[in-house]
Amino acid sequence: MPSDSVLVLGGGPAGMEAARGIASLGSKVVLVELRERLGGTPDSASYSSFALDHRKVSDVLTAMREEIERSPLIDVRLQSRLTAFEGKAGDFKATLTNIKGTSEAVDCAAVVIATGFQHFDPGRETQMYGYYEYEDVITLVDAERMLSAGKFVRPSTGEPPKAVCFIQCVGSRDRRIGNEYCSKVCCGISSKEAIEVRELVPDCKVFIFYIDMRMYGFWEDQLYWKAQEEHKVQFIRGIVTEVIRRGDKLVVKGEDTTMGRPVEAPMDMVVLSVGMEPSRGTVEMSKVLGVPLESHGFIAANGAPLDTVTTPVPGIFVAGAAAGPKDLEDTVGMAGLAAARAVALVRRQAGTAQPVG
Amino acid sequence: MPSDSVLVLGGGPAGMEAARGIASLGSKVVLVELRERLGGTPDSASYSSFALDHRKVSDVLTAMREEIERSPLIDVRLQSRLTAFEGKAGDFKATLTNIKGTSEAVDCAAVVIATGFQHFDPGRETQMYGYYEYEDVITLVDAERMLSAGKFVRPSTGEPPKAVCFIQCVGSRDRRIGNEYCSKVCCGISSKEAIEVRELVPDCKVFIFYIDMRMYGFWEDQLYWKAQEEHKVQFIRGIVTEVIRRGDKLVVKGEDTTMGRPVEAPMDMVVLSVGMEPSRGTVEMSKVLGVPLESHGFIAANGAPLDTVTTPVPGIFVAGAAAGPKDLEDTVGMAGLAAARAVALVRRQAGTAQPVG
Repeated sequence: MPSDSVLVLGGGPAGMEAARGIASLGSKVVLVELRERLGGTPDSASYSSFALDHRKVSDVLTAMREEIERSPLIDVRLQSRLTAFEGKAGDFKATLTNIKGTSEAVDCAAVVIATGFQHFDPGRETQMYGYYEYEDVITLVDAERMLSAGKFVRPSTGEPPKAVCFIQCVGSRDRRIGNEYCSKVCCGISSKEAIEVRELVPDCKVFIFYIDMRMYGFWEDQLYWKAQEEHKVQFIRGIVTEVIRRGDKLVVKGEDTTMGRPVEAPMDMVVLSVGMEPSRGTVEMSKVLGVPLESHGFIAANGAPLDTVTTPVPGIFVAGAAAGPKDLEDTVGMAGLAAARAVALVRRQAGTAQPVG
Repeated sequence: MPSDSVLVLGGGPAGMEAARGIASLGSKVVLVELRERLGGTPDSASYSSFALDHRKVSDVLTAMREEIERSPLIDVRLQSRLTAFEGKAGDFKATLTNIKGTSEAVDCAAVVIATGFQHFDPGRETQMYGYYEYEDVITLVDAERMLSAGKFVRPSTGEPPKAVCFIQCVGSRDRRIGNEYCSKVCCGISSKEAIEVRELVPDCKVFIFYIDMRMYGFWEDQLYWKAQEEHKVQFIRGIVTEVIRRGDKLVVKGEDTTMGRPVEAPMDMVVLSVGMEPSRGTVEMSKVLGVPLESHGFIAANGAPLDTVTTPVPGIFVAGAAAGPKDLEDTVGMAGLAAARAVALVRRQAGTAQPVG
């Protein structure tokens, strides 16, 4: 007998949205998450607030998590992973294994991969920016955690900084380190963090060194312009070639490409705007499920732009940053589309494709 | 008795994807389109090919249209518009009126607004770029139509051009003309068109004048880098202040902001990279449905980034560029999410929210 369940792999925003979408359409979900609670990277990395509306990320994730936990159609498996998989669309057999080593067989009609991304590790270019050498060189993610806690200080002194700069495109748009794509959200996230730093530490000067400021849609005026006009964040088009220490300051060296002159600016803190890479879970699920990766190493979704969620394996869909750099708007849209596709498949299998009501 | 139908307003990519998504979940759809066939702006404006995979737009739209027309659950109303609307979520009463003036009452449980965008009319800044003065100043849309037809020539002579430039951000990121947002797709579309021009007219030099090249995700290496490296398109960071005619050439004047020097470049054709504005249908539907517009004049979807499709009016959802500048990936994701939300509402109303199968 065909299964009426959908297996959702990953409990971040993509997986949670897919799960609640599937359940809202009347199908059962088994939602598998490696960590000890739902929420994904925005939760585990303690993201502070959303870029445009300034809602607290933790509040929004808590509300999603509670909705999932209340749903009688969603079974959550925490600290678990998919370890084996076989069958065909409509009739898959999955093996889940939890942290204790206990395995469980799950039948499912369809799968949604929602295993997300991981942040680029700037240690891979430590010679340039000194992430592992200098305490006061941090990443966007470290900054997000400090902003979440409401305390933005120099790690080396515990004092509020007087000058901070963000360096964009660390681990993105970079052939040397192998990540040729743009990570899409870092320009917006840096601008948002820059505003938050200015609010928390009003006498701190904040600079953003960028190649192109990619602030699409309403991010342009609601974030980029506001950062400049209301919060006096200074955007400098330039290439930073080196961060060194001089006394108790960091010195950022490079070129201001608009003014056509060298820059050498003392800073108290440097924030590296790290991009997205395929998560280990994404790579692992590709192997277990037999779904190919596209050329950048993310899950292949070959029908884009008019089908962003269908993988080359029938019955297996993808949502969110498992398929490449995505913002949260992309992520929930893909999750909704994947939910609709997966439930349509369940309905076809169950032979119940007549109108409701 | 509650209705089991969803009313979808607009038959472009967003509306077609929403309609087929809703039908795939077993609910009925009434799909309303003002034009005489489905396909939306990509169809009426004769878009050429998709940015990354080079599939022909017309082929893809034809396949979608045929799927819609085959579906027993989707009723299509062409050359029709919504003229009156009342009721509440789950129990709306809509009046549709066709081009002959015949009206029809339709009950529906939910509505998806998919009324799209319109291209910025560069006549509004004709003093700068001469769109209505010079035949050889065209828009991205005019270029798309020529590329679709496989013939890219100077309108004034009918001869292939030797030098063409694109000017980005015409009608976007511009406080003076009132469109403060970034239109998101124009950098990618210009780059794609630039490649197509180089392929059709190999000895034509192609330049793109830009403020920031916004090539997010895989567009970076698969489109922006390819345009430069494989197709020798020349990207110039600069501000064009004026287009004038000198003899049989257009002269583009401005500043190369990377080199910090004035530019004065003779061109055979200038392509204005026009952005997106709310379509007349979007503004009209806002009034008829009583759904507010957000500050830029698009349909308000207040829950972004984690809910991109829910408007402030219960039971009314939005998908695609009716809600702001969107690429096709955004559009189909939103359409899937809106389809799932609308069908979930139909199911709740019909009291059939038990598991399928």
